[in-house]
Amino acid sequence: MSRRSPHLAVPDVASLRARLEKARGAAADANTDALLIAPGSDLRYLIGEAGGSFERLTTLVVPAGDAAPALVVPKLEAPGYAGVPLDDLGVELVTWVDGDDPYGLVAGRLGSPGRVAVSDAMAALHVLALRAAVAGAEQTLAGPVLRELRMRKDAAEIAALRKAGQAIDRVHARMGEWLVPGRTEAEVGADITAAIVEEGHLAADFVIVGSGPNGASPHHDVSDRVIERGDIVVIDIGGPIAEGYNSDSTRTYAVGEPRDADVAGTYAVLQRAQAAAVEAVRPGATAEQIDAAAREIITEAGFGAEFIHRTGHGIGLDVHEEPYIVGGNSLPLEAGMAFSVEPGIYQAGRWGARIEDIVVVTADGVEALNNRPHELVVLGS
Amino acid sequence: MSRRSPHLAVPDVASLRARLEKARGAAADANTDALLIAPGSDLRYLIGEAGGSFERLTTLVVPAGDAAPALVVPKLEAPGYAGVPLDDLGVELVTWVDGDDPYGLVAGRLGSPGRVAVSDAMAALHVLALRAAVAGAEQTLAGPVLRELRMRKDAAEIAALRKAGQAIDRVHARMGEWLVPGRTEAEVGADITAAIVEEGHLAADFVIVGSGPNGASPHHDVSDRVIERGDIVVIDIGGPIAEGYNSDSTRTYAVGEPRDADVAGTYAVLQRAQAAAVEAVRPGATAEQIDAAAREIITEAGFGAEFIHRTGHGIGLDVHEEPYIVGGNSLPLEAGMAFSVEPGIYQAGRWGARIEDIVVVTADGVEALNNRPHELVVLGS
Repeated sequence: MSRRSPHLAVPDVASLRARLEKARGAAADANTDALLIAPGSDLRYLIGEAGGSFERLTTLVVPAGDAAPALVVPKLEAPGYAGVPLDDLGVELVTWVDGDDPYGLVAGRLGSPGRVAVSDAMAALHVLALRAAVAGAEQTLAGPVLRELRMRKDAAEIAALRKAGQAIDRVHARMGEWLVPGRTEAEVGADITAAIVEEGHLAADFVIVGSGPNGASPHHDVSDRVIERGDIVVIDIGGPIAEGYNSDSTRTYAVGEPRDADVAGTYAVLQRAQAAAVEAVRPGATAEQIDAAAREIITEAGFGAEFIHRTGHGIGLDVHEEPYIVGGNSLPLEAGMAFSVEPGIYQAGRWGARIEDIVVVTADGVEALNNRPHELVVLGS
Repeated sequence: MSRRSPHLAVPDVASLRARLEKARGAAADANTDALLIAPGSDLRYLIGEAGGSFERLTTLVVPAGDAAPALVVPKLEAPGYAGVPLDDLGVELVTWVDGDDPYGLVAGRLGSPGRVAVSDAMAALHVLALRAAVAGAEQTLAGPVLRELRMRKDAAEIAALRKAGQAIDRVHARMGEWLVPGRTEAEVGADITAAIVEEGHLAADFVIVGSGPNGASPHHDVSDRVIERGDIVVIDIGGPIAEGYNSDSTRTYAVGEPRDADVAGTYAVLQRAQAAAVEAVRPGATAEQIDAAAREIITEAGFGAEFIHRTGHGIGLDVHEEPYIVGGNSLPLEAGMAFSVEPGIYQAGRWGARIEDIVVVTADGVEALNNRPHELVVLGS
């Protein structure tokens, strides 16, 4: 049996060919002799298929030099790559069968490299076996090499992210259908999960329904807590669309008039902070400046200790990828970078609030891919 | 947001405590100072929660000595482990926040170890960072240590596998509802996917509908090929149940009378081979002897070159785990080991057939957890 990602539309050959060439060049710039790419988003980015594997090694060998890239795959999993234009991409298909030594096979293609980079998602099972098979070579991560490509989205990627953003906006628009007093977070979450698929996603990747005190836990998912009138509820949802790109949007709702008297004032601070961070996005601004734009407003209002996470994360084929919008990241933003802007204020034991949009850096500013109202939405009133 | 496995029933504390103690002992026996367990099945096995993480490090530190185990987790993901009886298990919860160095935090708890084992599923991103942070220590895989525990199932685990087997048998029993001429493999697969959930699984993990020539590709999933009368169709399906354990069963169907005249004779060989392999299962028999029991019959009948994969794989919290039923594996079977017995014969370009049961080694023989008929099932006639 097999556990591959759903077969998604493969990007045009020219785009994939360009990505492979850029990857070669980036590897060379990093004094890395070859990239070894495991199934996952990096593989999907380079050949259009995420692949999938268990204990059997599948890896795309991308040499920095002129040697042909090779997709090393178990023979019985090779049919899963039938949709990939390997010939047009100049990628050699190298299959192996149970009993062969796939690590030695990979090592044999590399010669005597000084440095080999493995993709960040490669499982330790293969990382350590490749380290032993390619003895003498320094083993590094391919992530820092590939992020230089992946965090700069092309027009087709941005179009896919825009489509995903519109799909998740449609789900938020329907929240009043499900988020009512007397239902459990899990019940509401099940309805949202179905709607995420109905509105155009392949699947619901995450559904956070954080009601009342659960809203103060940023990575809460759902529970059997019964939603009560007066609750503040954080809804953070998203998933992949057929193109492989992800949605991720958070809105905070009030089920009837808020129980806690401090909600309105605190939420207003959060809304100002999120808007200020989005407005700060432009080419040349740094990732940490975006974080600071939100954090300063929240801190000045006295809630700095209640904003317990970074302001955002890049998004694309992965829900979390570069660039990370966090203090200490001096990366200058460039047109085509896409990431979340999602400050939150968490009142432990009582309630929490978060507002999250995915934004893309444009030539002269920013485009928000989520466009639902940013105000606290009071439902059922 | 968060991407954890569904919250599953946590095994009783006594079982988890015993597993942690066995893991400590197995680590010590392997001259390993500590196990570093990433989210996934190993973590689920040891603390009852598979966890989940992106770029932020989550790892269970299991020292071989007397020091307390520690669950190192991002503070904002800690609530996801609320269902884990950490105190009763004597596991310390150690949280970190963005900006901290979680690798240094782990290294600090380890002192100056000689050998540290990381779980097979840990992502390279964390494997390489831990290697650098725990400089001087040999880094090995925890898989060989933990497999000694995980491949010997206790009564509760076998009960869960039996429940999963019965659930997937119920799906196979309904195949005639869906597998009819004129429908595509994808359409049939969608119905099977829904039924897998209806019959008691959390999700459909894999659905292979290999009709006609696609049946000759063991890891085919589904395609838009329209099923025709006379096709032979390989159906290989399974998924996890709430307890976390997986089903995996293959049956081969004929849609009306087989088109190819060689089907009956070839299938009879396969059926004899699969039965012989199951009958060979008993304590003391080796994994490779089970593989040979099937392979010899198929080879003697002249189909050796058409049986292009090993005979089986262990199954439990993972769909593929130890013990692997493959030539060269001299592991003696013991009561409590669970694995698939799934020989196949693949006639490239025409048709394929495979029969797969999950079996458990008993005190004096074998129990089959799948019990649908093994004959070629002719539908619609």
